[in-house]
Amino acid sequence: VRTVQGTVEEALAEISGERVVVHGASRTDAGVHAEGQVASARFETRLAAPTLAKALDAKLPADVGVVAVDPAPDSFHARRDAVGKLYRYAIWNGRRRSPLRRTRFAPVQQPLDVAAMRAAAASLAGRHDYSSFQNSAAEWRAEGVRRDRARSAVRTLHRLTIRGEAGGELQLDVVGDGFLRGMVRTLVGTLVQVGQGRRAAESIPGLLAAQDRRLAGPTAPAAGLCLVRVAYDPDELREIAGL
Amino acid sequence: VRTVQGTVEEALAEISGERVVVHGASRTDAGVHAEGQVASARFETRLAAPTLAKALDAKLPADVGVVAVDPAPDSFHARRDAVGKLYRYAIWNGRRRSPLRRTRFAPVQQPLDVAAMRAAAASLAGRHDYSSFQNSAAEWRAEGVRRDRARSAVRTLHRLTIRGEAGGELQLDVVGDGFLRGMVRTLVGTLVQVGQGRRAAESIPGLLAAQDRRLAGPTAPAAGLCLVRVAYDPDELREIAGL
Repeated sequence: VRTVQGTVEEALAEISGERVVVHGASRTDAGVHAEGQVASARFETRLAAPTLAKALDAKLPADVGVVAVDPAPDSFHARRDAVGKLYRYAIWNGRRRSPLRRTRFAPVQQPLDVAAMRAAAASLAGRHDYSSFQNSAAEWRAEGVRRDRARSAVRTLHRLTIRGEAGGELQLDVVGDGFLRGMVRTLVGTLVQVGQGRRAAESIPGLLAAQDRRLAGPTAPAAGLCLVRVAYDPDELREIAGL
Repeated sequence: VRTVQGTVEEALAEISGERVVVHGASRTDAGVHAEGQVASARFETRLAAPTLAKALDAKLPADVGVVAVDPAPDSFHARRDAVGKLYRYAIWNGRRRSPLRRTRFAPVQQPLDVAAMRAAAASLAGRHDYSSFQNSAAEWRAEGVRRDRARSAVRTLHRLTIRGEAGGELQLDVVGDGFLRGMVRTLVGTLVQVGQGRRAAESIPGLLAAQDRRLAGPTAPAAGLCLVRVAYDPDELREIAGL
């Protein structure tokens, strides 16, 4: 299976002549986009950062690109040091299929009740145990990931806002200090059910309390999801949280 | 070669049981997008327009879709009856490659002088002979199209505006009563040269007067171009021209 991580590792290995391991801030699923992924890697090079960025970018395929390369302290780890992430989920709520949006938007044909979705989103934000919104045991097995049941599922969502109008493009912005696997897509799948009138906004507190993935909505399609930005200090976090 | 026209003709033939010829308002080149293409076709059907739209859409592949189907008088012809078209050309002017924009934007790395481009665009708009901006004889041959030298190259561009800022996304909106083959992409290729300082905005009137394709800029890549809307009456034309 071709992955962004593997593609970047190969390119860095060619440049540095050593085996390089790349740690991305977010381990996004297949089909998920990223315009602000951050990754750390440790290797020796004589190249200055801008030269390295150019060399690396030149070796990457058309669908993977490097925005910038920066030197970091030995201790820096893109995933462990992240204090927040902004994900954006795009929904096409038009009556008709939109071929030009098909790789970036998840289609929902039925006009959504955006006000109800916003009310539900307000209940989902905050500090909660999000066990109801993490991948099910079956999904974990399908991905070949071992689920660590001992780890806490408590996270803080600093922002969960919805822009746009029913019948057109909707954008859901989700900012959190950390995310369980499948969490953003399950939050979206649940909010869409609220927008479709298949679940009441008032049911959200009970759904959180139940800590049971089977009670939440379906996992929304990968294509609609994009990792927009990763924050590494409180100022950056405030910026993406819009505080 | 797979074309949008051929794809729609096949689907309509399956539905109607007869051979159907589809006339698109714009014969866009390979790689050019359309979110507002209009096409006419003549065939017998008992289906009401909304039912036909659904049946047709269901038969089309993922990258072609139908927005709506409307009955029209026998005399209606999507190309001949069009009184204006709005094309939008998207440029990514960032320093780095943008993989997520690669299918919809043409990349131009060097920061563009947008003010100079706007001055040149103002000289290009209006009623002119656009011979300098139509495909060259070699391009016509490569496309297998016979050029009709006797036809006038005089067209009216009602609008040629540029939104956005250097270093980011730029959108060029072009509204005209008709377009020569390759005209929008050659206009854009020439405006980009102005933005790069390789051609003065003041040279445009002379370029128009020369009526010589060899003196204009290169044909900009197909990926950046999108047919946004076709107008069929003066009100629609005023709307897309922003008058």
